[in-house]
Amino acid sequence: MNISRSIADVRERIAAFRREHPGASVGFVPTMGYLHEGHAALLRRSVAECDFTVISIFVNPLQFGPNEDLERYPRDEDRDLKLAAECGANLVFLPTVEEMYPKRQRTIVSVSGVTERLCGASRPGHFDGVATVVSKLLHIVGPDRAYFGMKDAQQIAVIRTMVEDLNFPVDIVPVETVREPDGLALSSRNVYLSPEERRQAAVLSQALEHAQRWSAEPGMTAPVLEERVKSHIRTAPLAVIDYVEVLTYPELEQPGADTPLAEISGELILALAVKFGSTRLIDNRLLNLQEVTQACSAP
Amino acid sequence: MNISRSIADVRERIAAFRREHPGASVGFVPTMGYLHEGHAALLRRSVAECDFTVISIFVNPLQFGPNEDLERYPRDEDRDLKLAAECGANLVFLPTVEEMYPKRQRTIVSVSGVTERLCGASRPGHFDGVATVVSKLLHIVGPDRAYFGMKDAQQIAVIRTMVEDLNFPVDIVPVETVREPDGLALSSRNVYLSPEERRQAAVLSQALEHAQRWSAEPGMTAPVLEERVKSHIRTAPLAVIDYVEVLTYPELEQPGADTPLAEISGELILALAVKFGSTRLIDNRLLNLQEVTQACSAP
Repeated sequence: MNISRSIADVRERIAAFRREHPGASVGFVPTMGYLHEGHAALLRRSVAECDFTVISIFVNPLQFGPNEDLERYPRDEDRDLKLAAECGANLVFLPTVEEMYPKRQRTIVSVSGVTERLCGASRPGHFDGVATVVSKLLHIVGPDRAYFGMKDAQQIAVIRTMVEDLNFPVDIVPVETVREPDGLALSSRNVYLSPEERRQAAVLSQALEHAQRWSAEPGMTAPVLEERVKSHIRTAPLAVIDYVEVLTYPELEQPGADTPLAEISGELILALAVKFGSTRLIDNRLLNLQEVTQACSAP
Repeated sequence: MNISRSIADVRERIAAFRREHPGASVGFVPTMGYLHEGHAALLRRSVAECDFTVISIFVNPLQFGPNEDLERYPRDEDRDLKLAAECGANLVFLPTVEEMYPKRQRTIVSVSGVTERLCGASRPGHFDGVATVVSKLLHIVGPDRAYFGMKDAQQIAVIRTMVEDLNFPVDIVPVETVREPDGLALSSRNVYLSPEERRQAAVLSQALEHAQRWSAEPGMTAPVLEERVKSHIRTAPLAVIDYVEVLTYPELEQPGADTPLAEISGELILALAVKFGSTRLIDNRLLNLQEVTQACSAP
């Protein structure tokens, strides 16, 4: 596994691989480091599907708001490199902030529509920062496929919209969320949780599981489902809800408040953001109405 | 010369060329059609420098304001194809608006700084439209080099900023403005001019020529030079000045009003936009202070 800290070096190594292996495919896993089993799932998927796998580790200042956790975002380069190697990555891109932003960034890639709700509403400018850095990374790496975790479902919606609208020659591959035994979605931010917060945080995935069942109840609507999920989350005394929303996916638009969920064509997502102390956790679930309806109507 | 009307077909043809000619280079000339000798100069330069030359012809609605000349922008596909073939282009990309914008465009590439003055001030949103469509075209064609005419000097500054900020893997090559015998910069919009407007429009390049000389006068400053150029343009009774500005290039920042031009390090550009009737013409000149100063101080 090679490690590159400069853009020129990454480009050179990937170009050399492509020259030596005409027609071979390059997979890319962009991360902010502090890798866990969720990242490992992305890497393994890329290694299985592509001939050469590149992972980037870069805590992107452009996607953090002024009062967010940029400075204290967890970092552990040695452990990250070990995990990347174990998963079979071929090249790690580990740039400094100066390498990625040598001067003030004057060009911003901005996606409207899918960015207005959920984390886009809570974190103004966040998705401009994400779209801009992913645009840069895609130009630097030039992958055939890029892998993103479904835990950040809105991020995937934003990046798919960008890739489609700007005709990036890349396939965006969503990969299912990896969870702890009690259901908590893996996140680099989980290390911030106190033992008691960590214990109570299991309520989030529980709520999503219940919601899957509740969504199949006859006449169930988005506002009623959201209220029930909120009530369940509030059974954890340390939970402070930022949002709980049922939206169409990947458009992220509100379904009609009075429309029964079963009558909505296309996919629906239940997405939530909840704070435990100063740690903000997100999670989501695509609501599989078809399957559940069938299961309920079975004899 | 091949003609492609679909994105998929363009991609396939260029990929096939690259497969068959490993290491070969692709040059790209994006245009809005109604080609003239200025475009021919871009094409010939690309043909001379690259192994395969792609030209796109697309009148991009995204870069026209609501009261601008999108509908009446001149078009002549047959003549364009003939000229492209004569210049040695290998592939013409001729998409419809629906092919380029199949749904509402939600992703915008926005460049700040270099877009605030000159045409950016007169045409709000114009350069977002330019940056967005050029971003799309670069992703579709994937060229090694892209050629742009210096008549649109601000456009080149915007695209260079975008390419640098977003790490597009392409070289942007500026090509000198081609002029009529009386000095008028070639432009597809010149056909709008009445015979009398056309005659008077020669004042623009004359003013730029004079400005080159005036800029070398001891103590000459930007405001004084701008005033003198405006006075000269006003000798043409049909000329209505939009702007005349001396700026640093390619940053497009105002030099100090009291600073003698000779003391400013880096390049300066004199750029102007002037209306004749309903036709808005632009032109510019990089002020070569070094050379002139030397010429003046020669015995």
